[in-house]
Amino acid sequence: MTEAVAGHCLHLDPGTRENARRRLMSVRGHVEGILRMLDNESVYCVDVLKQIKAVDGALDKVGDLVLRSHLRDHVTTAHERGDTDEIVEELMEVLKYR
Amino acid sequence: MTEAVAGHCLHLDPGTRENARRRLMSVRGHVEGILRMLDNESVYCVDVLKQIKAVDGALDKVGDLVLRSHLRDHVTTAHERGDTDEIVEELMEVLKYR
Amino acid sequence: MTEAVAGHCLHLDPGTRENARRRLMSVRGHVEGILRMLDNESVYCVDVLKQIKAVDGALDKVGDLVLRSHLRDHVTTAHERGDTDEIVEELMEVLKYR
Amino acid sequence: MTEAVAGHCLHLDPGTRENARRRLMSVRGHVEGILRMLDNESVYCVDVLKQIKAVDGALDKVGDLVLRSHLRDHVTTAHERGDTDEIVEELMEVLKYR
Repeated sequence: MTEAVAGHCLHLDPGTRENARRRLMSVRGHVEGILRMLDNESVYCVDVLKQIKAVDGALDKVGDLVLRSHLRDHVTTAHERGDTDEIVEELMEVLKYR
Repeated sequence: MTEAVAGHCLHLDPGTRENARRRLMSVRGHVEGILRMLDNESVYCVDVLKQIKAVDGALDKVGDLVLRSHLRDHVTTAHERGDTDEIVEELMEVLKYR
Repeated sequence: MTEAVAGHCLHLDPGTRENARRRLMSVRGHVEGILRMLDNESVYCVDVLKQIKAVDGALDKVGDLVLRSHLRDHVTTAHERGDTDEIVEELMEVLKYR
Repeated sequence: MTEAVAGHCLHLDPGTRENARRRLMSVRGHVEGILRMLDNESVYCVDVLKQIKAVDGALDKVGDLVLRSHLRDHVTTAHERGDTDEIVEELMEVLKYR
């Protein structure tokens, strides 16, 4: 499905791509911070859970950025392009359990 | 609150700590994979969203591991230790919007 | 925002509306089942939690139906109608913490 | 599993039971409100999605009440009762995808 749609050259816009990249580098740093916490024998479970939750939140923000850009640039133009069904199905798939 | 409870020396058990560490290293690798995807000008939004969702799922698995260990080792013994209220409050806090 | 968009006469299609109605009647029945459980003094917490989770799942299914129909009928045609920004903002708002 | 645990007479405390009941009656009323919305041919999808999200939030609050009471009255005493494994497993089950 992605390929059919990609045939229309649907790309993530450069600004969002750069913003997502910066935020993901911070997510990676955060994950490395949790790895360091876990080197400590006396780490407390709930402190780890809080950090995991924070990373989850940061990842969701990246997802929101990309989703908003996808909606604006690709989903709202699907009918004109003629790929409504593919666009809707693949979007519903990634939104499941979100 | 964490400190009061930590006064009882509540630590993440070594097996879970090692398991969480291994899984988080894989999460970090996955995040680096998304960063590489984002270097590609023609990356498709939905492919990024799918990878973010996969990382989210992997992080949730780490959270489940740590949570299960916390429940077993620290929450089920709270009444005996006498810190029920603190243990319940801090757990409810991390479970919010989970 | 809703009003501006509603000016374009964006309605839920009749099939989805009927399907959502049927499912919501079943959700209501399920909620009434939990209310009856709660009349029982010896009800067990986890049995209530399981039922709440089941209702949550059923509600999410109704939401998915309506969302899919909204994407297909209104979001994919937004660029043609000229209300892309409003459509995207209000959708992002309902998808938050979904 | 529930039965083994229920053998220890683990009941939802009366105050929480009554609070949960009141909130669930309000949830039922809210669901009925959505059903009435759906009787309207010109209902707008996003208005339905917003109401479903509100009901979801209200249900989660009921779940939180019951969960907090379960943690306080039954989970924190599991080690003393000797049913730690059952209590932890059934709790992890209901917390999945919460």
